[in-house]
Amino acid sequence: MNDTPIPKTQHYGFGTVLDLPFTEAVTRTTEALKAEGFGVLTTIDVQQTMRDKLDVEFEPYVILGACNPQLAYRGLAAEHELGLLLPCNVIVHEHEGKSAVSVVDPAQMLAVAGGSEELRAVADEAGARLRRVVNALGSDTGS
Amino acid sequence: MNDTPIPKTQHYGFGTVLDLPFTEAVTRTTEALKAEGFGVLTTIDVQQTMRDKLDVEFEPYVILGACNPQLAYRGLAAEHELGLLLPCNVIVHEHEGKSAVSVVDPAQMLAVAGGSEELRAVADEAGARLRRVVNALGSDTGS
Repeated sequence: MNDTPIPKTQHYGFGTVLDLPFTEAVTRTTEALKAEGFGVLTTIDVQQTMRDKLDVEFEPYVILGACNPQLAYRGLAAEHELGLLLPCNVIVHEHEGKSAVSVVDPAQMLAVAGGSEELRAVADEAGARLRRVVNALGSDTGS
Repeated sequence: MNDTPIPKTQHYGFGTVLDLPFTEAVTRTTEALKAEGFGVLTTIDVQQTMRDKLDVEFEPYVILGACNPQLAYRGLAAEHELGLLLPCNVIVHEHEGKSAVSVVDPAQMLAVAGGSEELRAVADEAGARLRRVVNALGSDTGS
C-alpha cells in the first residue's frame, strides 16, 4: 500500500486507488459493498452513455448505486422523500493506469437533507460501513 | 389546478402532486423529462426492493435517475468526480390517492459540491430545466 497514491477526493466523498484493471476493480468494489450489506441496484456506464448520446470519448467510468435495504428503510421512515438522495453513489474510473474508487459521504448528503437525529444515526452507520468498504478495498491492492 | 394540493417538499427538492394513477404519473414524468433533454438512465422500484429484501410493505414509489447528457458532460469536465452526485433523482410515489412527483434541486446538490463558476452554471441550467419539467407536469393534471 505504500506505493499507492491516494487521489484527491472531493470533500463530498472518500476513496482509494486500486492497482487493478478497471473491470476487476468494479467487481472487487461490488463484492466489498456486498460484505457491508450494500447491493448495487443501478449501474451507469458513463463511457458508453457519452459515446451513445454525444459521440465523445471518456475513460472507463461507472456510477454504481449502492443500497443497504435496512438503512434505506430506516431513512425513508424518518423522511419519506429521502429517495431524492438515494442510493449511495460509488464511482469507479480509470486513473493513470489504475482504478480510482470513490464513495459519496452520507454525512455530506445529510448536510443537504438536514433532518432528524434518526436520519443522522442512519447516515453515521452508512458512512461507517462505506469507510470499511474503502478500507477493505485498500488492503486488497497488495500486488 | 386549484384543487391540487402542493405537498411539502424537502428543502433539497421541489415537486407537484398529479391527479393521476401512479403508473401513468411515472410515464408522464418520464415524457416531461425527455422534453427537457433528460433521459431516465435508472429506475429503482422501492416498493419491490423493500418487498424482496425486507419483506415489508411500501406504497408504489420509484426513484428515477434522470440525466441530461450535455449537462452531465459539462459537469464532469468541470469536476471529474461529479459522478458521485449524478444523475438527478426524481421520485414518484402514491400520495393520498394521487401521485407525488419530486425532483432533487441541483443547486442544493451543488451546495454539497461547492465548485466552480462553470459547475454553478451547469446546476443553474439543470435546475431551470427541471423546474420546467415540474411546471409542465402541473399543467397536465387538469382532470
